[in-house]
Amino acid sequence: MKEIRQNENLVNHESNTGNIKHPPVTVIGLGMMGSALAHALLKQGYQTTVWNRTADKADKLAAQGAVVAGTVAEAISASPLVIICVLDYRVVSEILEQAGDTVHGRAIVNLTNGTPAQAHQTAAWASEQGVEYLDGGIMAVPQMIGSPEALLLYSGSQKIFDAYGPALESFGSARYLGPNPGLAPLHDLALLSAMYGMFGGFFHAVAMIRSAQLQAETFTSLVVPWLQAMSASLPHLAQAVDAGEHQTKVSSLHINQTGFVHFIDACRDLGISTELMTPIQELINRGVAEGYGTDGLSRLVELLRKPELA
Amino acid sequence: MKEIRQNENLVNHESNTGNIKHPPVTVIGLGMMGSALAHALLKQGYQTTVWNRTADKADKLAAQGAVVAGTVAEAISASPLVIICVLDYRVVSEILEQAGDTVHGRAIVNLTNGTPAQAHQTAAWASEQGVEYLDGGIMAVPQMIGSPEALLLYSGSQKIFDAYGPALESFGSARYLGPNPGLAPLHDLALLSAMYGMFGGFFHAVAMIRSAQLQAETFTSLVVPWLQAMSASLPHLAQAVDAGEHQTKVSSLHINQTGFVHFIDACRDLGISTELMTPIQELINRGVAEGYGTDGLSRLVELLRKPELA
Ligand SMILES: NC(=O)c1ccc[n+]([C@@H]2O[C@H](COP(=O)([O-])OP(=O)(O)OC[C@H]3O[C@@H](n4cnc5c(N)ncnc54)[C@H](OP(=O)(O)O)[C@@H]3O)[C@@H](O)[C@H]2O)c1
Ligand SMILES: NC(=O)c1ccc[n+]([C@@H]2O[C@H](COP(=O)([O-])OP(=O)(O)OC[C@H]3O[C@@H](n4cnc5c(N)ncnc54)[C@H](OP(=O)(O)O)[C@@H]3O)[C@@H](O)[C@H]2O)c1
Repeated sequence: MKEIRQNENLVNHESNTGNIKHPPVTVIGLGMMGSALAHALLKQGYQTTVWNRTADKADKLAAQGAVVAGTVAEAISASPLVIICVLDYRVVSEILEQAGDTVHGRAIVNLTNGTPAQAHQTAAWASEQGVEYLDGGIMAVPQMIGSPEALLLYSGSQKIFDAYGPALESFGSARYLGPNPGLAPLHDLALLSAMYGMFGGFFHAVAMIRSAQLQAETFTSLVVPWLQAMSASLPHLAQAVDAGEHQTKVSSLHINQTGFVHFIDACRDLGISTELMTPIQELINRGVAEGYGTDGLSRLVELLRKPELA
Repeated sequence: MKEIRQNENLVNHESNTGNIKHPPVTVIGLGMMGSALAHALLKQGYQTTVWNRTADKADKLAAQGAVVAGTVAEAISASPLVIICVLDYRVVSEILEQAGDTVHGRAIVNLTNGTPAQAHQTAAWASEQGVEYLDGGIMAVPQMIGSPEALLLYSGSQKIFDAYGPALESFGSARYLGPNPGLAPLHDLALLSAMYGMFGGFFHAVAMIRSAQLQAETFTSLVVPWLQAMSASLPHLAQAVDAGEHQTKVSSLHINQTGFVHFIDACRDLGISTELMTPIQELINRGVAEGYGTDGLSRLVELLRKPELA
């Protein structure tokens, strides 16, 4: 019953505006990211209401046509669709408490960075309040917002994603991952870890190159195409993980273990800290020690999933 | 004087064959990689002499037209251009000792994996013996040899690279990095470290995804384009490193430090070992502790280059 009521509510809000494709939108939080989101909505012609704790951050957006709300409650009352992008989930909770009853029947999209557990907690609160809730993760810097290169991941209420797709696409490419609200933060954090790994490897490589008094920028003409070529092997590794079948014709843990010894020696010769590489070496060594020497690198994923190592 | 003699020698060998573009070539070492190299030469029509410690590994190549030498000396005498690809540099030395005087005036290309220091030692030996020496690193698996996707890095004798370019291009794309023989192994190891970093980050990400009972393969449709997009920022990071100017408008060490705390918590919630991520976190924390909190991630390269941390 609640579900149906909420759905009608979404539709009502839309028909109130007379334009189902351009409903009014509220943006709460005008830090670097929230400001970029509000700016993208204004650019697409959305009637945009904004609120920020430090009020003067709204000035620039007001000059661009944004309505500046005096309170959180006023901001939320202004639109059926409410975007929140603040420091963290603690701040999200504080702000939603200030909103009181005005939240009922709204569609809330939370683009604040957090964890799957935090997304689940907020979704549970939303469900109690009769609020539709979509969680999201922004895989972009504020400068990219408004271009298709900005990727935004969403999970939770499919109703919101379907009803407000065009508004969400003003921010960048939108991808809906499923009704489980934790999926967006999970994928957000997983993508970030892949990025940190790539950056860490790159920093180590550049430290080696710089130790020989060479230009890091010249090296990128080799390393960028190389990483792009190597990233083509990731789907094969993923298939091996899904199947739990780690035999390899290409590169066994054993071969990697042998190569790593010379590699680490060479880094030490160059005076480079091996702190970002020895953890990978230790994981490979553990794989061999546990009897997986003839398996491929994909085996390492399972070694990371043993709870006793967490 | 020695230089000139060697140069004449190269030219003589070539004219002996009557075909400057297709000189005879010898391949020493017929493991997985050496066999692929010899096969690529035969495919391009080179008269190819081969030698391997375990003789029967030459059988398949003999059927394809390779001349099988009975001794290392015989193999080296057969061609002006000698390719060596064996287990490690220790084996390279052993084999070259067996060659005796036959090495004089030859062009030796060593595609065995090693370190810059090992390349320098072998180049010094070659110089004493009146041998032209080109070191190389193969950024490919044997299955890729013969296609342009296989990247081979070379350093050392430019004479060899210039005179035998077409033969070397039978293996894949050839890139000459300079006369310092250590450059090829240095870049080889640097590219490998970038690859290990990317793989490590990917394995961590996949462990997270699998902990939620999701398919790793589906995730690659997100993570591969994501890593490719993020790799576009590597040249900017490299410029910052070259300039030693680490100010950022995008993402300070401080912001990364804050985000990392939640990220690590989320991994632990999921039962994932953080062993590949905490070293990156610790490096970021050290950067902040040393007063670089407002710098960008490029600062981390300098923290890896402090000798006391090696
Ligand atoms: N910037 C990026 O590159 C990026 C990329 C992806 C995701 N994100 C995520 O987007 C979110 C916002 O990031 P940002 O870059 O916009 O950060 P920011 O510039 O530091 O802005 C933080 C926002 O949170 C508000 N805030 C903090 N504490 C508050 C409190 N106690 N009560 C009310 N409001 C409070 C701030 O209000 P005041 O103005 O009053 O301080 C400001 O609006 C974060 O979750 C971040 O992880 C950012
Ligand atoms: N495979 C790859 O994906 C790959 C990629 C890039 C670079 N590489 C490099 O290429 C080189 C060869 O690798 P591979 O894959 O061909 O290895 P492999 O299949 O194990 O072959 C090793 C070769 O070394 C020879 N060898 C070992 N010890 C010897 C000794 N004491 N005396 C004489 N010969 C000896 C072996 O001869 P026997 O047949 O008599 O044992 C064989 O020809 C290595 O430096 C490797 O790092 C390989």
